[in-house]
Amino acid sequence: MAEMVYIGVIGAAECSGEVAAHAEKLGEGIARLGAVLVCGGRGGVMEAAARGARSAGGTVVGILPGNDPRGGNRYLNVAVATGLGDARNAVIARTCDVLVAVDGGYGTLSEIGLALKMGKPVVGLGTWRCTDCRGKDAEVIPAADAEEALRHCRLLLGL
Amino acid sequence: MAEMVYIGVIGAAECSGEVAAHAEKLGEGIARLGAVLVCGGRGGVMEAAARGARSAGGTVVGILPGNDPRGGNRYLNVAVATGLGDARNAVIARTCDVLVAVDGGYGTLSEIGLALKMGKPVVGLGTWRCTDCRGKDAEVIPAADAEEALRHCRLLLGL
Amino acid sequence: MAEMVYIGVIGAAECSGEVAAHAEKLGEGIARLGAVLVCGGRGGVMEAAARGARSAGGTVVGILPGNDPRGGNRYLNVAVATGLGDARNAVIARTCDVLVAVDGGYGTLSEIGLALKMGKPVVGLGTWRCTDCRGKDAEVIPAADAEEALRHCRLLLGL
Amino acid sequence: MAEMVYIGVIGAAECSGEVAAHAEKLGEGIARLGAVLVCGGRGGVMEAAARGARSAGGTVVGILPGNDPRGGNRYLNVAVATGLGDARNAVIARTCDVLVAVDGGYGTLSEIGLALKMGKPVVGLGTWRCTDCRGKDAEVIPAADAEEALRHCRLLLGL
Repeated sequence: MAEMVYIGVIGAAECSGEVAAHAEKLGEGIARLGAVLVCGGRGGVMEAAARGARSAGGTVVGILPGNDPRGGNRYLNVAVATGLGDARNAVIARTCDVLVAVDGGYGTLSEIGLALKMGKPVVGLGTWRCTDCRGKDAEVIPAADAEEALRHCRLLLGL
Repeated sequence: MAEMVYIGVIGAAECSGEVAAHAEKLGEGIARLGAVLVCGGRGGVMEAAARGARSAGGTVVGILPGNDPRGGNRYLNVAVATGLGDARNAVIARTCDVLVAVDGGYGTLSEIGLALKMGKPVVGLGTWRCTDCRGKDAEVIPAADAEEALRHCRLLLGL
Repeated sequence: MAEMVYIGVIGAAECSGEVAAHAEKLGEGIARLGAVLVCGGRGGVMEAAARGARSAGGTVVGILPGNDPRGGNRYLNVAVATGLGDARNAVIARTCDVLVAVDGGYGTLSEIGLALKMGKPVVGLGTWRCTDCRGKDAEVIPAADAEEALRHCRLLLGL
Repeated sequence: MAEMVYIGVIGAAECSGEVAAHAEKLGEGIARLGAVLVCGGRGGVMEAAARGARSAGGTVVGILPGNDPRGGNRYLNVAVATGLGDARNAVIARTCDVLVAVDGGYGTLSEIGLALKMGKPVVGLGTWRCTDCRGKDAEVIPAADAEEALRHCRLLLGL
């Protein structure tokens, strides 16, 4: 079996139609790259990305905060019910080779921080902009749209 | 998409050929039931069960203790690198609808305890026998072989 | 500051008066050894042990499954609200240098398994008896009463 | 026993002398408030805050990422070895009633995100500035120095 590549899509459980359209296109592209899409398994950005990936025949893993593997959106091939609450964000970051942050709330902010702490590349698509006290930006690679985010993923992963 | 059913196979990372044969048959049967096989993703019982499930076209999820999604056996469709160490045993138990314990060491013992604590049915195939201080056995459903374990899984899950 | 020694008392959240009396005596003795008492922070055995330790001026840490640090019993000096559910059992086992299992249900069984997997000594006071499929008992050190359990702790820790 | 209040000090494992001086003053003030100081248990900001709290007779809890309760700095009264890696950041955020972020790297960024996601107030002392894609700042309460951070803590906690 070929080694799997894992790309995370992180974003909030609620989002606008425009953001969902970006996430869906991103999910579709991830599936076309042959990568497994990892997400938090819930609604909003996670669901849109999952729907996109499934529409292109991809594999979607949802890593859920709660206790019920049936608590995720309906586009997951596999749901992992961690029962860990927000600590599951660290499991998402840990599993992924690259993460793409789309828009997002505080959970997404935490995942950006966790992923960068773990040395994982993070691509940002209209997401948080973070600057430390010395004026240095967090090393999130900016992308203007799903296509550019996917180009970054391909380059980062050598696909 | 039909709701997925998750069956865990728990057992040690090293095992005899005889135990591996049981685990492989069990994995094959789980795939034929259409269930997702969940395991700890490593060698021994986990690898044998995964190999069996893949041989029957099934889906195998490995929930790994370490940081590397490439740290699992080669029969996994999806590897989740939790980075949680032994706390990942709780994630395995939480995700599964039923667990089958095959032989096993202390990690397996902990998974039996965690699953029963969570109210998940556990089938035992040549595994730990545990009796509390009042002489009451842990509610592990005994199975003499892989076929009987699979029959229990089917009944428990209404498949 | 002297290095702290951590002794866990694991047991169910409900217990008989007799079991509570054992746990309380155990907690008192742990405090007299100068060790920190670590427990799951809830009722039953955990509360009785905590009460005993506090009565002797000891320090008690409760590692809680839930989200609220005020969700523990009233004898805790420090409550850690893990929000991890049953995965917190692994945190308890990981922190302790020795664990004493008193009576107990499935959660205790899981903690015994986790601690032994991590190579931590476990003393058993009227707790689970576990035998693997080769007839080998889990390496729980039996104690007839709190005094004997404390003697084992002292020997194991070189106190 | 009076209900404990938990104040977290989050920041990087390495920091300048100036930042350490802020953190130490902060730790001292937290102890004088009668609150338990919660931190990640390691060096840099965590050690400086812990040292300050101990100098004022306070209680310091270190929630460590690794497996060894002896792996923390020497100012901890209690060390919890979670063995969870970076997922321990969620345990820190969960346990605290208020968190103060001092300077900090990506781990601190993740803790800010986790705490805000959990609805916990976060005071920032020369830390990350984060703005979402709509130009809205993360709700970190700015403080110019340790005194101002402590005033915020008192107000937030009604002390």
